[in-house]
Amino acid sequence: MAKAVVLVSGGLDSATTLAAAKSEGFDCHALSFDYGQRNRCELEAAAKVAASMEVPHLVMKIDLRAWGGSALTSDAIAVPDAEDSHGIPDTYVPARNLIFLSFATAWAEVLGARDIFIGVNDVDYSGYPDCRPAFIDAFTECARLGTRAVDENWKFQIHAPLQRLSKADIIRLGTRLGVDYSLTLSCYNPSGDGASCGKCATCALRHAGFLAAGIPDPTRYV
Amino acid sequence: MAKAVVLVSGGLDSATTLAAAKSEGFDCHALSFDYGQRNRCELEAAAKVAASMEVPHLVMKIDLRAWGGSALTSDAIAVPDAEDSHGIPDTYVPARNLIFLSFATAWAEVLGARDIFIGVNDVDYSGYPDCRPAFIDAFTECARLGTRAVDENWKFQIHAPLQRLSKADIIRLGTRLGVDYSLTLSCYNPSGDGASCGKCATCALRHAGFLAAGIPDPTRYV
Repeated sequence: MAKAVVLVSGGLDSATTLAAAKSEGFDCHALSFDYGQRNRCELEAAAKVAASMEVPHLVMKIDLRAWGGSALTSDAIAVPDAEDSHGIPDTYVPARNLIFLSFATAWAEVLGARDIFIGVNDVDYSGYPDCRPAFIDAFTECARLGTRAVDENWKFQIHAPLQRLSKADIIRLGTRLGVDYSLTLSCYNPSGDGASCGKCATCALRHAGFLAAGIPDPTRYV
Repeated sequence: MAKAVVLVSGGLDSATTLAAAKSEGFDCHALSFDYGQRNRCELEAAAKVAASMEVPHLVMKIDLRAWGGSALTSDAIAVPDAEDSHGIPDTYVPARNLIFLSFATAWAEVLGARDIFIGVNDVDYSGYPDCRPAFIDAFTECARLGTRAVDENWKFQIHAPLQRLSKADIIRLGTRLGVDYSLTLSCYNPSGDGASCGKCATCALRHAGFLAAGIPDPTRYV
């Protein structure tokens, strides 16, 4: 059974990505990051998601607060209630997916895995440069060149199964694959006990996705 | 004065790289990694090198021991005394430069810097995939695509000023630029107080470099 490293944030998208990787028959290894995000409940959600799919889960601690630069990693930048749909929102974390994929590549190399899954999405997050297909393609080549080739045909494949799906389509896919979305957390401003605010941009996007999919929203709101 | 992020390990090569970046007029920001390396004295050397050149220094703590895979990050793999000149040595750390450059890119993005310096070398470390020019070129494009473009001409430049220099040439360059090599540490197996073993592959390479350059070796050996 081929091994794969799957980036799991605790959110709806990465839970669906993990389910998709499992449904393709991969022996999945879930990787999360404690990167100093405001939203600590995310990591608990990631652990619950991985456990629910019986997948080993590793949390890498890094400190992106060392330089800030995002509403998610700096107390000096407020999380916007409604995001500007043009340009890059304040919740963009500089080079985050580049860093996350680099660690995933290192773990994959040690595991002998050639497959990495990431839940990037070009529909709802088109403003994030590190969610674009061109970035994922460039990273794939970079990862191949920057690692030990086990044979002539060695290369990584970065799978982004949600790349072109709407939120409703993602929710339909995950529901078909048995994802328990009540375990996931998308909110940028959850309460201390992990309830979603219902007001931030990701809460709005998530709730609209359930409505459009015609599937009851299991999210616990404050 | 344009800002630059410079990867500084505490070794001879990166100290020379930092001096080269300064000599080109950059406002340098030194970045080191506490990645669980055996060799803890490296970080003290990095701090001394940065201080000697009056450059701000940040140490990012990450844990590459989480998955091991190298003599430098796993107690289960011995550091070789004399390295095989063919193939990739056991001291290769999976995807290390990919991870280091990703963090450097994030910090550069926050600083508004477009320049990143790394002391990779294709002459002595040709066995390390992440020291090859092709990898550096691929990373440059990947970093551009994975970050926020501030204008149409935004791109990063990854400077690898040592790429094609012999160890003797590196030492000559650094000596001309005033690098105090007694502050640096290259040894894979230093003693508790930071003296070099004089036997490992990097000690041998370093000492031969001073000999070939005709410059007294200031290294403190056990």
